[in-house]
Amino acid sequence: MYYIGVDLGGTNIAVGLVSKEGNLLYKHSVKTEREKPHEAVIKNIVEACKTLLSSNNIKVEDIEYIGIGLPGTCNSEKGIIEYAPNINFKNVNIRKEMKKYFDHPIYIDNDANCAALGESIAGSAKDYDSSITVTLGTGIGGGVIVGKKIVTGAFGGAGEIGHQIIKAGGELCGCGNRGCFEAYASATALIRESKIAAIKNPNTKILELANNDINLIDPKIVFAALDDGDIVAKEVIDNYLYFLAVGLGSLINILQPDVIVIGGGVSKQEDNLINPLKELVRENVLGKALKTEIKVAKLGNDAGIIGAGMLKA
Amino acid sequence: MYYIGVDLGGTNIAVGLVSKEGNLLYKHSVKTEREKPHEAVIKNIVEACKTLLSSNNIKVEDIEYIGIGLPGTCNSEKGIIEYAPNINFKNVNIRKEMKKYFDHPIYIDNDANCAALGESIAGSAKDYDSSITVTLGTGIGGGVIVGKKIVTGAFGGAGEIGHQIIKAGGELCGCGNRGCFEAYASATALIRESKIAAIKNPNTKILELANNDINLIDPKIVFAALDDGDIVAKEVIDNYLYFLAVGLGSLINILQPDVIVIGGGVSKQEDNLINPLKELVRENVLGKALKTEIKVAKLGNDAGIIGAGMLKA
Repeated sequence: MYYIGVDLGGTNIAVGLVSKEGNLLYKHSVKTEREKPHEAVIKNIVEACKTLLSSNNIKVEDIEYIGIGLPGTCNSEKGIIEYAPNINFKNVNIRKEMKKYFDHPIYIDNDANCAALGESIAGSAKDYDSSITVTLGTGIGGGVIVGKKIVTGAFGGAGEIGHQIIKAGGELCGCGNRGCFEAYASATALIRESKIAAIKNPNTKILELANNDINLIDPKIVFAALDDGDIVAKEVIDNYLYFLAVGLGSLINILQPDVIVIGGGVSKQEDNLINPLKELVRENVLGKALKTEIKVAKLGNDAGIIGAGMLKA
Repeated sequence: MYYIGVDLGGTNIAVGLVSKEGNLLYKHSVKTEREKPHEAVIKNIVEACKTLLSSNNIKVEDIEYIGIGLPGTCNSEKGIIEYAPNINFKNVNIRKEMKKYFDHPIYIDNDANCAALGESIAGSAKDYDSSITVTLGTGIGGGVIVGKKIVTGAFGGAGEIGHQIIKAGGELCGCGNRGCFEAYASATALIRESKIAAIKNPNTKILELANNDINLIDPKIVFAALDDGDIVAKEVIDNYLYFLAVGLGSLINILQPDVIVIGGGVSKQEDNLINPLKELVRENVLGKALKTEIKVAKLGNDAGIIGAGMLKA
């Protein structure tokens, strides 16, 4: 018996065949076509699953259930996607829709929670009971794992660690509140602060590497400028790491997981990020007793597929 | 069969006989005598347990285990109190010491975690699967309950919610860090801000109710001044509630428990605290979708005894 894991994204739908042990055996991907009505998107999920099975000679009877990770809020119990703006879903009973095509149990959860579960089962948190996976991207996604299970929250809304408030009254966040972790430690925040610094310091290497076009600045460029010894880049990144460490330290004080796993594009900067980060996080942990490990995510986009596949394993 | 729950405090040791259902049947209390060596304090625990049993005609064979809540950090697995400054314990193997007097399994955990478990089993969170108990006192104590169990953290250090950072670089906290929840929303923080306000506004009712002695200001006086229509008190309390709501909203975004239970002296101000707080917390919850309930703690000091007694129930 196998599980199917579905990572329903704004651009692509990635599906995978997951073994009972959490190994991703095969995968397949199709376009989401989010501009179409939700029935069409769901049809795309169904077709992707069917192709996954047929092209690998797996019988539909060998599938125990289908797990779906989605970019939004959901009621896992009822199988309803409450609000997922990236795919234009609002109060869609995806379980009921999927049941038109499959007899199998359909389980759903937030995609960041699925990614955290994936890292816990097959990735950087594999050897640990408790973990928090933090994905530094356009926003900050997150999932809390205790006892190898997702902490879903009473109504499926837990794990929104990007919206823990680390500076009351501070920077405006995309959510409308002020001072969220995401407003300081997402890739978007890093780019925002880099642009401000580049305007103030037009001689910075950041701008040179961006072909003097401020709109081309991205985290990779800022870290490259740091590697080139640019002091403006150093100041921006030091400041970024300071806030990242505040948020991670705060999470450790609340939950003290065995490990914090950092994913997303920024996490590729291991030397410039993870190593200095450990010392900075320690400063924010009660009694400076940092026992939680900090690691880079291992599975990339596969984490979400594996986690969705293992939702009820 | 029964459990014994021990609340080991800086002043008193309270012990109780707890039924399998989590009912506190009998209790007894003795002085801690923390000025004496730790062996003497442990002897006091033992004597209190023995008196509890003998005065209620309970046989020692009818006790399944003894659970102890302590004011500090501990290694629950090994039964070691690592650091508890209030009782002058440092790296004391309390399990080994207690075993000199009792044959029973000895379990230990932090007292705030025990109080959270007590409220979850027999108090305001009784009907809920997940809860966070927040005690507003000299500091802010806390415990996180998921699935009716304490989230202890990988090394017994979870639940330090008073040290989540809500304003990076802000007020200095007793822990040495800046911007902790405790530095803004503890009773100590309320008193500090009230004193500052009273110095600036010597005509405030706060000062009158404190017999014009700034050192007599306490939360009760500040809330009484508010009830009398004092605008200085209103400003201080509005500000206090703002930060309290930031911290609670932040916790909800991370963990979305069914209920947040608020204990400690300040929580007695139900009309002035809990009711306005709900609306303020909502402002800090992602999407303003507040589903978590907010309630006042029910068990007072008994929560810690019951929780200690139920540690392995």
